[in-house]
Amino acid sequence: MVRMALIGAGFIGSVHAENLAAHPGVEFVGVYDVDAARSTDLATRNLTRAIDLDAAFAPSEVDAVLIASSTDTHADHLRRAATSGLAVLCEKPIDLDLHHAIDVVGEVGTTGRPMMVDFNRRFDRDYAELHHAVRAGEIGTVELVQMTTRGPVLPPLDYVAVSGGQMRDQTVHFFDLARWITGEDPVSVFAAGSVFTDPRMTELGDVDTSAVILRMPTGTLVQIDSTRRIGYGYDERIEVLGSTGMIEAGRQRVGSVTRYRAGSLVTDGMHPGWFERVAPTYRSALDHFVSALDSGTPIGPTLPEALAAQAIAEAATRSLRSGGPETITYPALSTATI
Amino acid sequence: MVRMALIGAGFIGSVHAENLAAHPGVEFVGVYDVDAARSTDLATRNLTRAIDLDAAFAPSEVDAVLIASSTDTHADHLRRAATSGLAVLCEKPIDLDLHHAIDVVGEVGTTGRPMMVDFNRRFDRDYAELHHAVRAGEIGTVELVQMTTRGPVLPPLDYVAVSGGQMRDQTVHFFDLARWITGEDPVSVFAAGSVFTDPRMTELGDVDTSAVILRMPTGTLVQIDSTRRIGYGYDERIEVLGSTGMIEAGRQRVGSVTRYRAGSLVTDGMHPGWFERVAPTYRSALDHFVSALDSGTPIGPTLPEALAAQAIAEAATRSLRSGGPETITYPALSTATI
Amino acid sequence: MVRMALIGAGFIGSVHAENLAAHPGVEFVGVYDVDAARSTDLATRNLTRAIDLDAAFAPSEVDAVLIASSTDTHADHLRRAATSGLAVLCEKPIDLDLHHAIDVVGEVGTTGRPMMVDFNRRFDRDYAELHHAVRAGEIGTVELVQMTTRGPVLPPLDYVAVSGGQMRDQTVHFFDLARWITGEDPVSVFAAGSVFTDPRMTELGDVDTSAVILRMPTGTLVQIDSTRRIGYGYDERIEVLGSTGMIEAGRQRVGSVTRYRAGSLVTDGMHPGWFERVAPTYRSALDHFVSALDSGTPIGPTLPEALAAQAIAEAATRSLRSGGPETITYPALSTATI
Amino acid sequence: MVRMALIGAGFIGSVHAENLAAHPGVEFVGVYDVDAARSTDLATRNLTRAIDLDAAFAPSEVDAVLIASSTDTHADHLRRAATSGLAVLCEKPIDLDLHHAIDVVGEVGTTGRPMMVDFNRRFDRDYAELHHAVRAGEIGTVELVQMTTRGPVLPPLDYVAVSGGQMRDQTVHFFDLARWITGEDPVSVFAAGSVFTDPRMTELGDVDTSAVILRMPTGTLVQIDSTRRIGYGYDERIEVLGSTGMIEAGRQRVGSVTRYRAGSLVTDGMHPGWFERVAPTYRSALDHFVSALDSGTPIGPTLPEALAAQAIAEAATRSLRSGGPETITYPALSTATI
Repeated sequence: MVRMALIGAGFIGSVHAENLAAHPGVEFVGVYDVDAARSTDLATRNLTRAIDLDAAFAPSEVDAVLIASSTDTHADHLRRAATSGLAVLCEKPIDLDLHHAIDVVGEVGTTGRPMMVDFNRRFDRDYAELHHAVRAGEIGTVELVQMTTRGPVLPPLDYVAVSGGQMRDQTVHFFDLARWITGEDPVSVFAAGSVFTDPRMTELGDVDTSAVILRMPTGTLVQIDSTRRIGYGYDERIEVLGSTGMIEAGRQRVGSVTRYRAGSLVTDGMHPGWFERVAPTYRSALDHFVSALDSGTPIGPTLPEALAAQAIAEAATRSLRSGGPETITYPALSTATI
Repeated sequence: MVRMALIGAGFIGSVHAENLAAHPGVEFVGVYDVDAARSTDLATRNLTRAIDLDAAFAPSEVDAVLIASSTDTHADHLRRAATSGLAVLCEKPIDLDLHHAIDVVGEVGTTGRPMMVDFNRRFDRDYAELHHAVRAGEIGTVELVQMTTRGPVLPPLDYVAVSGGQMRDQTVHFFDLARWITGEDPVSVFAAGSVFTDPRMTELGDVDTSAVILRMPTGTLVQIDSTRRIGYGYDERIEVLGSTGMIEAGRQRVGSVTRYRAGSLVTDGMHPGWFERVAPTYRSALDHFVSALDSGTPIGPTLPEALAAQAIAEAATRSLRSGGPETITYPALSTATI
Repeated sequence: MVRMALIGAGFIGSVHAENLAAHPGVEFVGVYDVDAARSTDLATRNLTRAIDLDAAFAPSEVDAVLIASSTDTHADHLRRAATSGLAVLCEKPIDLDLHHAIDVVGEVGTTGRPMMVDFNRRFDRDYAELHHAVRAGEIGTVELVQMTTRGPVLPPLDYVAVSGGQMRDQTVHFFDLARWITGEDPVSVFAAGSVFTDPRMTELGDVDTSAVILRMPTGTLVQIDSTRRIGYGYDERIEVLGSTGMIEAGRQRVGSVTRYRAGSLVTDGMHPGWFERVAPTYRSALDHFVSALDSGTPIGPTLPEALAAQAIAEAATRSLRSGGPETITYPALSTATI
Repeated sequence: MVRMALIGAGFIGSVHAENLAAHPGVEFVGVYDVDAARSTDLATRNLTRAIDLDAAFAPSEVDAVLIASSTDTHADHLRRAATSGLAVLCEKPIDLDLHHAIDVVGEVGTTGRPMMVDFNRRFDRDYAELHHAVRAGEIGTVELVQMTTRGPVLPPLDYVAVSGGQMRDQTVHFFDLARWITGEDPVSVFAAGSVFTDPRMTELGDVDTSAVILRMPTGTLVQIDSTRRIGYGYDERIEVLGSTGMIEAGRQRVGSVTRYRAGSLVTDGMHPGWFERVAPTYRSALDHFVSALDSGTPIGPTLPEALAAQAIAEAATRSLRSGGPETITYPALSTATI
């Protein structure tokens, strides 16, 4: 039984709260939020208590914290967890500023306590099957990867303004998946982007539609298209072409109903939003974290892995601006297993 | 908030226990089982108490009971719930013997308390969409229905021996769906069956493979194929052909991964067993029951509806033996909304 | 090179004419039709000659005739081909009256010349793959077969009136496929039918919607649903469940284009009519006939095989009227390889 | 009736010969090839004559020539057709050297006779539907295009050596489709490539695996992945994301048969090679050419359109070498309708 406290009672915090309450291996110690009313409400709905920050990090009561507060507080909470000797499951990113993030990881990485960044897509059932198949050599050497990540509607501009931009906010998940699936750190990135949704995106220095090519040391090429507003729902897919076969994690539909009409078949469409599509991954990620804590097996994605994905996003953002390919520079400590 | 007690701590009882514990609108009062150790264990795992039978039916503590005990006890528990003025969510069947079942329903039906039989497939996401579309007139008048229900392995023979046979145990779910989707009570049934799995099935007077045709009063034809051992997993599908279109609830696969090989594509297959396929329906059925209790809206499938499905199974069983079509006789009280 | 004459210049005759003209192994000798203008026109369009009936059956000029004239003339043309010692590829049926058909086959069957009935669906790419897989033992023993045959619109009533009814005209193709795929002659048939399209169908003693169950000697069950007017195009599918697996020849769509919309995906639909769906089978059937003549290998489906399918249709038609299952009686000479 | 001569009796010439022989609107005058035996053989098989070069370009006997000879002869044949006032259907490319190609088009473009380059994929059923839908505004403004073109095996190295490289030989079809579908001329291209098949590809200065991003003047991004050896067959797909929807021309399988096995479904795979996949497009392209000649409607893709696609391939080839994005320069005469 792992005693866990939750930091943050916003939307994603409430998702985590439900999973913490339902997990048979978790004793859900309590919720902290800067907004006390919000944490009380969330605690009540999940049969736990609202607690203060000290209680959330009290090593006598808590084994691990789940950090789901606003991005600008992640670094501080990570430091405090390290000081208290707690394990951590932290929402991405560690810090929007890569240099700050590197500093934090350098500091907290020495505690020896397991720390995991919640790149939850690694825990998607299909991506996990794909990863397993690729790493087991089922398709030989990976030669080409095609990834698609498309959101239904442009997020509110005030969110976009502090998100770090499309590469750091949206595509970064697929930078992590690309490393995880291929087992390689890309050496360079080319990114092309456009704005089709709202001209203010241009003022923000951001794009809503982009195409990215990563080059891996072995020559493997990775294409990623990312869009913010597709209208037809939330859409992800990955295909991996290897020397002896191809494997694809296809688009997912909400159901299996088909209408047969003259000249066309109409089937259930895509999930309406990202959350409906990836909801089960939060539970699976938590499950991995708890199981690994219990059994002492390795936890991941680790902080250095998260830094590596962030370093790619950084170079991709530079490429969007420079118009040319950019070399990716990894932090010195990014030596963790991919 | 509905206060609910659970009767039965076997496999399906444990499924219900988890859903009762997680449901935000349910106060999970306790679990009763003839095997006290089993109920204690299940109660512990779901943060509730093991209780005795009196407590399970105590109207001061309980609003509704969920009957998931062995089939031969359903009738008694229904009677006791009626006496105590409790609402009921009961696993099917009411009683394996149709005449006994009719008697029970006649007795308990006068309490005015909501009683529902857990024909859980009505709460399958795809079947619900299909039902809604058909009843909304999307495909005009229903002319032909094709249903498939296929299990992965022959159940243990000692289960089969007391199951009532394929029509009453397996196909009955689809008799209920046929009534529910078409809005009609079939007038006659023809059933043909064979034994391919184990010769002892013949000794039991049962079949493992069957094809059934129902005829509805308006001429609509319903085909149902039922098999006990297909090897490739658990397989259900329904298609409904109407005068202005066709709608299909297709086979479901466990994932969306495809391997591309020379000459063939290999995709994720079917669910391994019936439980994996229909697991979410138990939660949805409970949700319907609780919401309806809370809001006072009608609850279904009702006891008379369950009797109607059972009456069809009865005639189908006769047809398997006679080799000819059989007229279906409905109990006088089966006047409930389909 | 096989010298072939065509009898009949109607719709299906014109399909055959095009294939005869294009086949590299065929010398297309000429076309005969009772309507001389029609045969002249068809001959011109296919670079051959309009010929009279004597020329069509002249053994010095012709090796084989393709009989595609009206059904009531098939028997006479078969007899004349037999007398002239010609091979025959004949449209189905041999004769609408089973007893007449048996007589004809008895007479012509002694010539020793190859005679084939054009049950063209055996030459469908997918059905052939399915047949091959089943007969190669890929799915073990066949236990259950599900077949669907659905036309887009009710044929003209004056066609229906002389067609022999749904069983003899439409379902008969699938009676043949059922024998061919399972390798068994069904022993009994139950058919239930309804009229949904035009009340005059009832006056004609016919149905437009039916469900059929065949029972094979080994217990294998075959379900066939046949409808005349589905509106959404032309729809066929077959699935065969065996003791060690299942194999399905799925619905075919006209293209692979998908539109992604909010809440639904819209894909290319079914073929508009039967001809678009099965067009390639005419060429493949001719190819089989010509290759077999050239190489001396067996030709099929043979006349006795066609009689067997017709005998099933006869019993199914009786079942529609009697309301009960009917035993199928095969003509004495139906000893041909299934 | 259009009188047509064929130049070239190699593999693709024989494909054209069959289509010319079967086309009801074509009088197939004859075949010329530098290898007289080869042209005689092809002529015999298609009921036409082997002819010499003068006869192939004789305006009194011929209305149009189909140029399917070796690439290095296309330019001369185009010039001769222009001189003779003949219409032309020419295999791509006009000339491997873009400057020579521009010169030829400048010379022959003034004759006023219809000249078409056989970018046959425009005549693929699915791509045509997709093009029509996009140009009809079904998905609003095009924002992102994803194209995949993958061959089953590396072509013989001696073919590759004279092919001009992957961009000019393989990807060029999709450069043409990109222009045709979006209605825009890309302004810049970034291409990244690798060699995975045979190290001699590197010596040839070529790649076998590449990812390309085109940027259109309106900001539309086009991604194209091209590979030479995938093993699992021949694989093409296109998806076009617009401001109001997405439309996809999906992968094509050779049949619709599915095997259901424990844990997986196995379906018919991809076409074994490019020819099986695109075979029907040759007939459709010829049909367009003939119909347009007959009716006087515009013919396309025109020579200037082919030059535009070639100019993109040229810049993409430069990008592969420079490692950065390249601006695309179009020949002055490339003003034809996309």
